[in-house]
Amino acid sequence: MEMKQEKLSFESDYMKGAHPAVMEALVRTNLEKTGGYGLDPYTEAAKEKIRAACGCPEAEVEFLVGGTQTNATVIDALLRGYQGVVATRSGHISVHEAGAIEADGHKVLTLPEHDGKLDAGELLTYLQDFYADENHEHMVMPGLVYISHPTESGTLYSKEELLSLREVSASFGLALYLDGARLAYALGCPENDITLEDLAELCDVFYIGGTKCGALFGEAVVIPDPERIPHFFTIIKQHGARLAKGRLLGVQYDALFTDDLYLKLGARAVKAADRVRQALVEKGYKLCFGSPTNQVFFVMENTALAAFGEKVCYSFWEKADEEHTIIRLATDWGTTDEEVDALIAVL
Amino acid sequence: MEMKQEKLSFESDYMKGAHPAVMEALVRTNLEKTGGYGLDPYTEAAKEKIRAACGCPEAEVEFLVGGTQTNATVIDALLRGYQGVVATRSGHISVHEAGAIEADGHKVLTLPEHDGKLDAGELLTYLQDFYADENHEHMVMPGLVYISHPTESGTLYSKEELLSLREVSASFGLALYLDGARLAYALGCPENDITLEDLAELCDVFYIGGTKCGALFGEAVVIPDPERIPHFFTIIKQHGARLAKGRLLGVQYDALFTDDLYLKLGARAVKAADRVRQALVEKGYKLCFGSPTNQVFFVMENTALAAFGEKVCYSFWEKADEEHTIIRLATDWGTTDEEVDALIAVL
Amino acid sequence: MEMKQEKLSFESDYMKGAHPAVMEALVRTNLEKTGGYGLDPYTEAAKEKIRAACGCPEAEVEFLVGGTQTNATVIDALLRGYQGVVATRSGHISVHEAGAIEADGHKVLTLPEHDGKLDAGELLTYLQDFYADENHEHMVMPGLVYISHPTESGTLYSKEELLSLREVSASFGLALYLDGARLAYALGCPENDITLEDLAELCDVFYIGGTKCGALFGEAVVIPDPERIPHFFTIIKQHGARLAKGRLLGVQYDALFTDDLYLKLGARAVKAADRVRQALVEKGYKLCFGSPTNQVFFVMENTALAAFGEKVCYSFWEKADEEHTIIRLATDWGTTDEEVDALIAVL
Amino acid sequence: MEMKQEKLSFESDYMKGAHPAVMEALVRTNLEKTGGYGLDPYTEAAKEKIRAACGCPEAEVEFLVGGTQTNATVIDALLRGYQGVVATRSGHISVHEAGAIEADGHKVLTLPEHDGKLDAGELLTYLQDFYADENHEHMVMPGLVYISHPTESGTLYSKEELLSLREVSASFGLALYLDGARLAYALGCPENDITLEDLAELCDVFYIGGTKCGALFGEAVVIPDPERIPHFFTIIKQHGARLAKGRLLGVQYDALFTDDLYLKLGARAVKAADRVRQALVEKGYKLCFGSPTNQVFFVMENTALAAFGEKVCYSFWEKADEEHTIIRLATDWGTTDEEVDALIAVL
Repeated sequence: MEMKQEKLSFESDYMKGAHPAVMEALVRTNLEKTGGYGLDPYTEAAKEKIRAACGCPEAEVEFLVGGTQTNATVIDALLRGYQGVVATRSGHISVHEAGAIEADGHKVLTLPEHDGKLDAGELLTYLQDFYADENHEHMVMPGLVYISHPTESGTLYSKEELLSLREVSASFGLALYLDGARLAYALGCPENDITLEDLAELCDVFYIGGTKCGALFGEAVVIPDPERIPHFFTIIKQHGARLAKGRLLGVQYDALFTDDLYLKLGARAVKAADRVRQALVEKGYKLCFGSPTNQVFFVMENTALAAFGEKVCYSFWEKADEEHTIIRLATDWGTTDEEVDALIAVL
Repeated sequence: MEMKQEKLSFESDYMKGAHPAVMEALVRTNLEKTGGYGLDPYTEAAKEKIRAACGCPEAEVEFLVGGTQTNATVIDALLRGYQGVVATRSGHISVHEAGAIEADGHKVLTLPEHDGKLDAGELLTYLQDFYADENHEHMVMPGLVYISHPTESGTLYSKEELLSLREVSASFGLALYLDGARLAYALGCPENDITLEDLAELCDVFYIGGTKCGALFGEAVVIPDPERIPHFFTIIKQHGARLAKGRLLGVQYDALFTDDLYLKLGARAVKAADRVRQALVEKGYKLCFGSPTNQVFFVMENTALAAFGEKVCYSFWEKADEEHTIIRLATDWGTTDEEVDALIAVL
Repeated sequence: MEMKQEKLSFESDYMKGAHPAVMEALVRTNLEKTGGYGLDPYTEAAKEKIRAACGCPEAEVEFLVGGTQTNATVIDALLRGYQGVVATRSGHISVHEAGAIEADGHKVLTLPEHDGKLDAGELLTYLQDFYADENHEHMVMPGLVYISHPTESGTLYSKEELLSLREVSASFGLALYLDGARLAYALGCPENDITLEDLAELCDVFYIGGTKCGALFGEAVVIPDPERIPHFFTIIKQHGARLAKGRLLGVQYDALFTDDLYLKLGARAVKAADRVRQALVEKGYKLCFGSPTNQVFFVMENTALAAFGEKVCYSFWEKADEEHTIIRLATDWGTTDEEVDALIAVL
Repeated sequence: MEMKQEKLSFESDYMKGAHPAVMEALVRTNLEKTGGYGLDPYTEAAKEKIRAACGCPEAEVEFLVGGTQTNATVIDALLRGYQGVVATRSGHISVHEAGAIEADGHKVLTLPEHDGKLDAGELLTYLQDFYADENHEHMVMPGLVYISHPTESGTLYSKEELLSLREVSASFGLALYLDGARLAYALGCPENDITLEDLAELCDVFYIGGTKCGALFGEAVVIPDPERIPHFFTIIKQHGARLAKGRLLGVQYDALFTDDLYLKLGARAVKAADRVRQALVEKGYKLCFGSPTNQVFFVMENTALAAFGEKVCYSFWEKADEEHTIIRLATDWGTTDEEVDALIAVL
């Protein structure tokens, strides 16, 4: 994953710094002195803008630094010690967080994934079977459902699917938590029918990812009912997730939620990805998973891949068969038309 | 702790952003694309400069985001599950980290503090008594000594004191870990006789604090013997402490360790604090704890304090008696002569 | 602590097996087949007898195996992840449980001890100071008060003291948990004015110790309001504290709570201790801590102690001064008049 | 699972107390006074006998109370904080220990099961793939392989299979831990070719289960190389797993390892199970999983099962299809010929 400047970079969406407007706000406020730990006017302003965007004036909003940290902190806050979190087998918390959830004492209870998504029917069956099992008191009690939107495969839940997950979760007393590390790239997608207001209505907690969508770093946790997590300030601190100069997060989200910048950045990246997808289809490549967001998955012959990799940084995803590989290209908020043109020329 | 622009701000050393040279470097590199998680050339360059400054070319250097996170991650990495960490009663990990050490399963074993410092003789007595106790296998085994330099009271260990702590620790198999959240303000202090090279020789692990000394955020963990903590990358990730855009840390430390900037910033803040101390003594105030660093502690009458607080943001430290209070003023890398003049005028 | 059969054994109260009536019940039921994990008629009968003895027909009663296990399980069940437990510095959980509380993620917040007891006034001051501290959200929030009755020093709380602790705890939202590892020796003491009914009224949870008072092993946890700890079965299992042949605990407690056996055993041991104390006073020894229970603490000259130790197994408690030692002698439910006579003859 | 005396009881192997010889030893030693926490001559004698039976005079042997507790304590002792344990999906630690492993901070990394067994080839593939994944430092590092013998399905590893698992584990630096909750029923099985000596040679740690094989309770942990787990005493105490009257475990194992009683009990139960299996085959039932040990799995029509359940206590295992169920019958060390005759009569 070393930087190779001569190559086109499509390996992921966190390889650059921040959107210029975000950077400019950081520079402009740099020498001001404010209270620490999020007790500053920029953080307050950013919270207000997020509350407004979510149509949820009562929501508690807290800013954390990174995704793994946010998932571990929120999940630990929502669960009791004897409870586990339900996720798909490919969920980020299931695989790529180095056991951060288990380090807090909670089991990740895995169900199958369907292009990255959790199926409400399978969740229902699992929960019914769990409580039907006469030994269930010897087992980890499910306390929370974790999903991400977009998923690890770049796919989107429909509002109807989200509603079903909410209903099933609620009917068994489970909370619903949505990881929005790449939420801008869902919100910016024509296929998406889930709004921030919907998330505020249907999720117990969700977060609006900044690291991958325009910020240097930062994830905005939204708790529609602020009584859902008492003492969240202390919980964040205990998890080492409370930034001393908390205003850095406030300043960035204030910029991202001014003039719909966050939504615009998401939409731009998706458009760039759409151009890539269209070119791939035209050239006869096979797309995978059905991702409509900023992540493009497709199959390439291994022999062609070697040459491709000389010119483009991509992410290996998985083996398709002995002679083919599924790879991922990701656009981001700053991908230019020129970069897409150059990529298409290579394809 | 709300921002009050009309007042002089001496309440702490993390109220501003970053030194302009650090900020400039972040802006300059903002739109480059590099590898994530610290696998980028800026991080590599910063590591090299820190290794050179520590006279320790083999050292492992890792950059984390904040102090509580760094303490929790390093201490958990150094201890086995059944071991605890020895610290003074006023140690940051003992009081102000919301139980982050205990959240990882480790007890903080407290000893008295003497102006913030741990006494090697008392440590020796504690360890001798522990192993003399026939029930010590029913008790938490001490595995690590935690100190900070400067201490919570702004005081400094002498090199001789550090050597004694090292000897006592080593003779009972305990590691020695030094929290350098404000290390610049020790290194920049004429009274200080402990160098970065000394730290690399005497500590198992220490960190060079950036958040309070010129950076937006960041703490550079130095492990002189890289085999001391295997799999530190994964441990950092597990603790939610691995920054996705790790280069932000590299870029900042690269700037701080260019042309001795870090040391210069520390020295400047200490000089400003010295001017404040001198003025306080001249005006008959009683200084406390003997801090020679950027933190100034002194006694003020409660009636005078109310008026003082109208004009200056300070930190309450503790009650001296019914009618007096110990307060703290802190300078930082950016405190100007004008600010000090204005403060002295108020005193 | 090796067995030395030729010596008188007064070193502690868990050196023998079970009272003969308990042992007889285990033998009698040995070859019956019953449900596991406490789902058997003996456990049900024992629970009913304990509920009756506590005047609390609604209470949940669960049987665990040992004291450290019980403390860790109950405290973890009562606390949220960000909360700590308040105890005296000499509390069993503070010192002699190898960090079992911290292993579950909770800090033990220590206050001074007065002959083993926690002072309600000091608790109040601590809690007031905690919430007055503007940084308290950076600190471990107290969630529970832990006391033991009798204390580590064999002393007893008065009902008035217990009421005060309850009031202070409740007024700050803390639960009150009482460790009754040696409860029989409090209940069997003329000075004691706290009944099982009082405990059920004043404590959120308490336990009635069996290991040190007539059983082979076992601690009966009483939760007067069964909704106080939902899913306690699973919590016990998760802590490795659920005995497969749970009926072994039921059978023992059924015997101990038949015909007031538990109370009688406690009273007998206290009477034996009283005879020892009377003899010590007559012979001019100085008693310590004011323990009226089965533990006798007194001062002995070091030279005399060597000879005494040839004939009697005792527990070293602490150094009184360079030439004197405080030692402990403990009677138990089975201490005979002859053993006491022999001990007095040695003194 | 309520006791129903009128029925035949074949639901599991921990429904009775202890073998009479074990019980007699407990009664005989009941009023002796010995040191606590395993520091007594009976424990020492039992350890010696186990060391001899394992052909491993240097082994450390420690006695714990129950299986979940033992698994959690040993696994936590063997792993570093960032490591996980590999087990089959049906492994006891994966499913039926209420998250005790995760409560200690470790992920259970699951692989497929083949009649309860872990396949060395699949383990190898998993480990190779893990280290080939360029993101493996973001994932939980496998540190230990957990297997049980017999497995949850009553099946046995061959010595060759165990050797393969050992080789694969060792070649990737993983420890091998064997859960012997029902080890007597493996050792007593003609098909078994793995001896205690083999276990001492091939496993880093294993335990010899008592709870299900003749004892009231107890599991004997064997650590062939005592330096493998330093400070195990404290680790056990920290996990709430150190029995105060530790001699109760020593007395029981002393009896079980006198005159090969443990092996004889295992063999007797297997013979009883063999008679059941033979009868089932003769009557045309379909056996499942190929268990040759004390657990008998077979398919029954749901309609027949209802009638069967009126007369025999069995364990539901899983649905075979809509009209058939797989159930388990278990014999134990005390199953009599008469009970087997009666069962066969019902079938």
